[in-house]
Amino acid sequence: MSILESPPPDLRARLRDFYEDYVFCLDEFRLEDWPAFFTEDCHYRVQSRENHDAGLPVGIIHCMNKNMLKDRVTALRKTTVFQPRSLRHFVSGVRVQEVRDGEVDAQANFLIIESMSDQNPVISLVGRYIDRIVISEDGFKIKSRDCVYDNYQILTSLITPV
Amino acid sequence: MSILESPPPDLRARLRDFYEDYVFCLDEFRLEDWPAFFTEDCHYRVQSRENHDAGLPVGIIHCMNKNMLKDRVTALRKTTVFQPRSLRHFVSGVRVQEVRDGEVDAQANFLIIESMSDQNPVISLVGRYIDRIVISEDGFKIKSRDCVYDNYQILTSLITPV
Amino acid sequence: MSILESPPPDLRARLRDFYEDYVFCLDEFRLEDWPAFFTEDCHYRVQSRENHDAGLPVGIIHCMNKNMLKDRVTALRKTTVFQPRSLRHFVSGVRVQEVRDGEVDAQANFLIIESMSDQNPVISLVGRYIDRIVISEDGFKIKSRDCVYDNYQILTSLITPV
Repeated sequence: MSILESPPPDLRARLRDFYEDYVFCLDEFRLEDWPAFFTEDCHYRVQSRENHDAGLPVGIIHCMNKNMLKDRVTALRKTTVFQPRSLRHFVSGVRVQEVRDGEVDAQANFLIIESMSDQNPVISLVGRYIDRIVISEDGFKIKSRDCVYDNYQILTSLITPV
Repeated sequence: MSILESPPPDLRARLRDFYEDYVFCLDEFRLEDWPAFFTEDCHYRVQSRENHDAGLPVGIIHCMNKNMLKDRVTALRKTTVFQPRSLRHFVSGVRVQEVRDGEVDAQANFLIIESMSDQNPVISLVGRYIDRIVISEDGFKIKSRDCVYDNYQILTSLITPV
Repeated sequence: MSILESPPPDLRARLRDFYEDYVFCLDEFRLEDWPAFFTEDCHYRVQSRENHDAGLPVGIIHCMNKNMLKDRVTALRKTTVFQPRSLRHFVSGVRVQEVRDGEVDAQANFLIIESMSDQNPVISLVGRYIDRIVISEDGFKIKSRDCVYDNYQILTSLITPV
């Protein structure tokens, strides 16, 4: 388990790849693959900056484990009706904040552009991922992800994961 | 030709550099340097997501070899009249999809911001590059590039390469 | 001082990290940490593309040394009144233009998204950093930075550093 004791020297570069794999999964709308990025006991929350800065726990999406992520995917596929759209993520500023035993606190900016079939592309969501990521021999897994958006309101109902 | 048999270990990082060199060339409007990113027998197409997903071949730009790229540059420089503007590309999510003998299938998201002399910057085009890239001893060359955009329509005539 | 004679082989990757640390500092509004990215005798300017292309020296912000950067931070903290907002930077296209003795000329694209408390996020500023960066044993320091924006006008008064 040496990898758990000494983080890889190219940790930041590998995390950048991991973030890009994550958003690729969402951009391709491969929702069933999305929970695999998380640990079983994960925390996943989409939250306004206002609430985050005030230390309030409320989020517009809040999942306390991987099964809740899977339920969300099922709901999206089976019951939610929504207009077709393309979402495209742009990630920048991947940073390692702290490294502990087998875990890394990391952060990155995201920009999501939404294109619908009858209007020009717009900024759907902008903000940052605030993450705790487990470094295992299988690669990275997200133990905790807060998607903290800067938007003062979410224009359309937030349909897909961030 | 060992490089053709075993792809470099830092392939993804090197591809990221290559994508950024490509868009730098376009942002600087160095159009004459643009065809050099491609092989002689290249395919280059700019296509809507709608057509791409339906498997339709139609694109708003379609070049079947490097000479057609050069012709396009000549046309742009000599005959096309258009209002001055700044285009700036943002590339994210560079991914290696598959590696074969001396070739790599890769993909990346692009966001092009257009600034004209009398209005605020707008999202000009958003989408992804879907590429087949040849790994040679001279570096990378694009054998096939589909620029698949999410926009439902192209507002201004698409003047410069994507 | 061998590092001054032979630039590190992963220079571009390390510069990308440096650019992302820089914009993280600004996105987090850690203004007091911002001058530390610069040398004592630095040049820092925010300038329109129009003026830059015409070779005109005029910029909307122009600092000739690190003390002027610090003064600017003090002014921002103590005297300037402005509406709260989130700024988020996206950096792409980091490139090494030239390497000389212990210095590197580098460039990158920036996109700044502004979110205010009563409107949707908008493109605040888009353009490129044109830099001379000193490579020292302590890491990188910016000796000269021109922030050349494509916007034809700055909508709101430019409050924070770019």
